[in-house]
Amino acid sequence: MLVNKKIISRFSQYRKALIRFQELGLIKVFSDSLGEAVGVTSAQVRKDFSLYGISGNKRGGYQIQDLLDELQSILGKDKVHDVVVVGIGNLGQALIHYGGFEKENIHIIAGFDIDPAKLSKSSRIPVYHLDELNTFVCQNNIEIGILAVPDAAAQHVCDIMVESDIKGILNFAPIGLKAPADVVINNVYLQAELENVIYFVNALENKCKRCKKQ
Amino acid sequence: MLVNKKIISRFSQYRKALIRFQELGLIKVFSDSLGEAVGVTSAQVRKDFSLYGISGNKRGGYQIQDLLDELQSILGKDKVHDVVVVGIGNLGQALIHYGGFEKENIHIIAGFDIDPAKLSKSSRIPVYHLDELNTFVCQNNIEIGILAVPDAAAQHVCDIMVESDIKGILNFAPIGLKAPADVVINNVYLQAELENVIYFVNALENKCKRCKKQ
Repeated sequence: MLVNKKIISRFSQYRKALIRFQELGLIKVFSDSLGEAVGVTSAQVRKDFSLYGISGNKRGGYQIQDLLDELQSILGKDKVHDVVVVGIGNLGQALIHYGGFEKENIHIIAGFDIDPAKLSKSSRIPVYHLDELNTFVCQNNIEIGILAVPDAAAQHVCDIMVESDIKGILNFAPIGLKAPADVVINNVYLQAELENVIYFVNALENKCKRCKKQ
Repeated sequence: MLVNKKIISRFSQYRKALIRFQELGLIKVFSDSLGEAVGVTSAQVRKDFSLYGISGNKRGGYQIQDLLDELQSILGKDKVHDVVVVGIGNLGQALIHYGGFEKENIHIIAGFDIDPAKLSKSSRIPVYHLDELNTFVCQNNIEIGILAVPDAAAQHVCDIMVESDIKGILNFAPIGLKAPADVVINNVYLQAELENVIYFVNALENKCKRCKKQ
């Protein structure tokens, strides 16, 4: 089956909505309620699930726990995931101490940098020299890394991560990285996200001015 | 004209690609080169531009400088933008010191928090009490704010930002915020982005296992 980024993103959202439904005491859910919670049509929900052989009951809907079990196994959510952060500048530093990941069973277990001033093997989350990445990744079965180095170094560091057998990278450097087809790269471009807010606000204001002129 | 989030995002990408072309010494560009640089079809490029009355020349393409001038005015990129950060935890702290924004003419000029230990009026980028947000936003004509508070406080702080007349919010709290229609909210869910990397890697691995079985 083709790994489709959009489907996987929706599955992640379905999972969160189902957990909320369960917390409210619900046992069953219909595709239209689930679609509404995630912002897609009920047909899309049914199509996504049927791709993985999951079908509901027209009268009764889906059993929430069954759906969650299926999604956990598709998403690999039952495992605890250890992650490393490469680049311990302001952003990397914030990410290794960011509480939000722990809730999702994701543990940042080490940082890597080349600046001797940033290394600290005895911290709660140790920071090692980048030269040690390969051995560390191998010994700790790490598959996922966060890349938070300056733009100019990003491709080179990405190559080192790929050589160390990291299979998934969350990239914060505002450039498109090249990597082999079996490596997943997900980009978070903070500047672009903030710029977009500015653009939308400008566009809304221009629209208001036009409305007033008419 | 309807403010379409996707178009504005593409315009932002076109702008970046055009600057790169200009840096390479190019003066004109065809819609297919621009589309390729951004990952859309040439028809999409022409359609987007024609919405704003910008047309190219079939033989000569578009003048890069003309396009950039148009995009600057659509996107409001010629202005310098002052932004505040609300919530000075690990992430907020990193964001107020993040160098990447300055390059894009975006200046973080103040932070806000409720924790007395985090306030520092004399820092290069001062951190004030949240109670001072309203006055500060008014005096400094701030339209854009970054929200980096814990989930439980996010909606309440969002309401305070909206009351202070902030028109665009970049939200890092992993919840959907409610705001009036004339306020733009753009969400960056870091957990979800990292989870997605994990899911894609799992999905790729499951696919590989299936391939090997066959």
